[in-house]
Amino acid sequence: MSDALKIGIAGLGTVGASLVRILQDRHEMLATTCGRAIEIMAVTARDRSRDRGVNLANIKWFDDAVSLASGADIDVFIELVGGAGDPAYSAVKAALQRGIHVVTANKALLAAHGIELAGIAEEHGALLNYEAAVAGGIPVIKALRESMTGNTVSRVYGIMNGTCNYILTKMEKEGLSFEDCLKEAQRLGYAEADPAFDIEGNDTAHKLSILTSLAFGTAIAADDIYLEGITNISIEDIQAAADLGYRIKLLGVAQRTESGIEQRVHPTMVPYDSVIAQVDGVTNAVAIESDILGELLMVGPGAGGNATASAVLGDVADIAKSRPGAQHVPAFGRPATALLPYKRARIQSHEGGYFIRLKVLDRTGVFANIARHMAENDISLESIMQHSKHYVDSAEPKTIILVTHATHEASVRKAIVAIKGEGYLVGEPQVIRIERPKAG
Amino acid sequence: MSDALKIGIAGLGTVGASLVRILQDRHEMLATTCGRAIEIMAVTARDRSRDRGVNLANIKWFDDAVSLASGADIDVFIELVGGAGDPAYSAVKAALQRGIHVVTANKALLAAHGIELAGIAEEHGALLNYEAAVAGGIPVIKALRESMTGNTVSRVYGIMNGTCNYILTKMEKEGLSFEDCLKEAQRLGYAEADPAFDIEGNDTAHKLSILTSLAFGTAIAADDIYLEGITNISIEDIQAAADLGYRIKLLGVAQRTESGIEQRVHPTMVPYDSVIAQVDGVTNAVAIESDILGELLMVGPGAGGNATASAVLGDVADIAKSRPGAQHVPAFGRPATALLPYKRARIQSHEGGYFIRLKVLDRTGVFANIARHMAENDISLESIMQHSKHYVDSAEPKTIILVTHATHEASVRKAIVAIKGEGYLVGEPQVIRIERPKAG
Repeated sequence: MSDALKIGIAGLGTVGASLVRILQDRHEMLATTCGRAIEIMAVTARDRSRDRGVNLANIKWFDDAVSLASGADIDVFIELVGGAGDPAYSAVKAALQRGIHVVTANKALLAAHGIELAGIAEEHGALLNYEAAVAGGIPVIKALRESMTGNTVSRVYGIMNGTCNYILTKMEKEGLSFEDCLKEAQRLGYAEADPAFDIEGNDTAHKLSILTSLAFGTAIAADDIYLEGITNISIEDIQAAADLGYRIKLLGVAQRTESGIEQRVHPTMVPYDSVIAQVDGVTNAVAIESDILGELLMVGPGAGGNATASAVLGDVADIAKSRPGAQHVPAFGRPATALLPYKRARIQSHEGGYFIRLKVLDRTGVFANIARHMAENDISLESIMQHSKHYVDSAEPKTIILVTHATHEASVRKAIVAIKGEGYLVGEPQVIRIERPKAG
Repeated sequence: MSDALKIGIAGLGTVGASLVRILQDRHEMLATTCGRAIEIMAVTARDRSRDRGVNLANIKWFDDAVSLASGADIDVFIELVGGAGDPAYSAVKAALQRGIHVVTANKALLAAHGIELAGIAEEHGALLNYEAAVAGGIPVIKALRESMTGNTVSRVYGIMNGTCNYILTKMEKEGLSFEDCLKEAQRLGYAEADPAFDIEGNDTAHKLSILTSLAFGTAIAADDIYLEGITNISIEDIQAAADLGYRIKLLGVAQRTESGIEQRVHPTMVPYDSVIAQVDGVTNAVAIESDILGELLMVGPGAGGNATASAVLGDVADIAKSRPGAQHVPAFGRPATALLPYKRARIQSHEGGYFIRLKVLDRTGVFANIARHMAENDISLESIMQHSKHYVDSAEPKTIILVTHATHEASVRKAIVAIKGEGYLVGEPQVIRIERPKAG
């Protein structure tokens, strides 16, 4: 058996503590599998005195992540500090510049500095592994970076935020409002006290930007993502979706188009009998469509201390199984210098089906008028119907629901502006994009 | 860039031809990703003269797989010949004994000789990769062997035969008989002229035996699998399942129990709103339940020239990215000598829910009598109902459907024997096991 693999861990929150526990409890089993022992040599965390339920005796304590990354006698630096900036950024950089492999769960760091860090890693013969950064325990990075080598990816999409999926699932199953479900998610620890980062879609966008780079071999462009959160989704939308044979999910979608790459995060209607529609609660799912393999969908836990620690451990084990400096695995699939520039496709050129919900005054000819505006913008309709659960007074506004065949976003926007000009709309129209799996 | 990786391919059927085409068409792209070129040095196939639509000029032709594996100047031997015996077996062995890495799609070979071959590979510092052997394009081998390192798996199960899943899906969706759907599958090329190997469950059993070894770190025991095919499933079962909120799938299941490991392949009822229930047609799916990661489900193409070639290519690329002799990746997760003996749990001790369909003569007290036999065998019932779509003459036999709570197989068998003794049964009872995902 070879020399032990020496690791240092920065950050001992839920994931870090879980990782330490697993490495200690399964020391023998891991040594058998990896062909050598994995030894924790150094750790650091904000609070040294906190009881984390793990034994840190005989492990060197460093004052901060950067000094650990720069000074510890280690083969692998595990960054579980979080955040796009320092100390995570400087610590990872310092480790890579010493030729030390890095394993990180930090999506924000990679979204902001991933390509720069990948370049430094390659220059110094170090690996940069980050399975835990996207969709927690789901091995989507490995699938894209290793299993699908040689494939040309056409689309990657997924449910990558457990908070949003929990809220949308609960709204549907229990008929509760967005606000009530958010409160319940907060009570259960599925949502932060300040939930904006999750429910506005930013968290999904960070993860999507990493998948886009891996899938299409392009530089990361995390700021160039069309973003809509789920705060605007009402129980009425969810019920109408169900009536039409759809469920609403917050998807991150990256797609190769003729004009460039579309990156978008928005509430999306998916066909009820598609596999991804059945992914409920905090569970995540990622689908990859490519030209040789076809369609691959992976479903699993997207967060949680253990699931994330498992992904980190898989990354560490890959390094343990290879001999130092013996692998060529560019962080984003191809060498950082060979990544293509990211060319954005504007959301206006997006092509797909749309669900449109309009509240209108009950006037003669409104139906026909809406249909005419659609036709004038070359939008072909799959259905148009008045939607109401109860008999309502004819003086009340009526709800009209349209489902379009594939059309352009620009056309939909133009049609809506024209309809707004007619004066019969009450409030803002709701527009939800429809996404269909390639097959099934 | 390092020296090219030299490969030899034995077998130029659909998968082999597809692989050659991809390696030639994407030569540059693969070299960029892998850090070195992949060059086809040698090939062999039964018929040299056949036009496969690929350019084999400048590639050395060998008369047979064994002479290629023994004599070609290659780093990797790709075995696409198929079959548990020769020439596949001798060719793979010859390559490994020369220290040449092997990539194979051959589930029958691995089911029969996997552990022996893994031992030879380790002895000679060679890798034995076989992603394509189980569930085609789904990277389940990589997930178990690499991503889930350190996890203790409790259950692995899946839809691993496209022929069976196509037939069961078509029976349900179109209300057609097993025989009609089998004919249609044969017409479309989804089933062989002699379909026994698929529809009797043997193909699934081969794949399951490989997953069992990887998941539980045990020796392969392909002959020790409880086996029931789908030939016995009627449209009446499928409709009753639907009425009860289930769908019927042919699952391969391997499960850790107190008395050993259960390996079983049989038609199975899965809850309609579970993700795996929505996996239709020839698509495959594999679920893995483990203690750290949690539940992982992967859905994708289980067969087809391109999907299989993609999995083979992923295995080859992994070797290309590592430096010769630089990796320690035991074929079945742990060194062949460290694999645990397989201890079988008998099917009689299986614990789970059961669907039981009985055709009975319409006599007074039959219902009560059946319920009494269940109670006497400690079987707790979830439901018992008379099932018929139409009003039928009371002289006709009636169908009674029972769904049990979790119970033991032995109890169910005893109860059925007792009921058979009562004399009111018409024909054979139908018994279908129920399998529930851990969550959702």
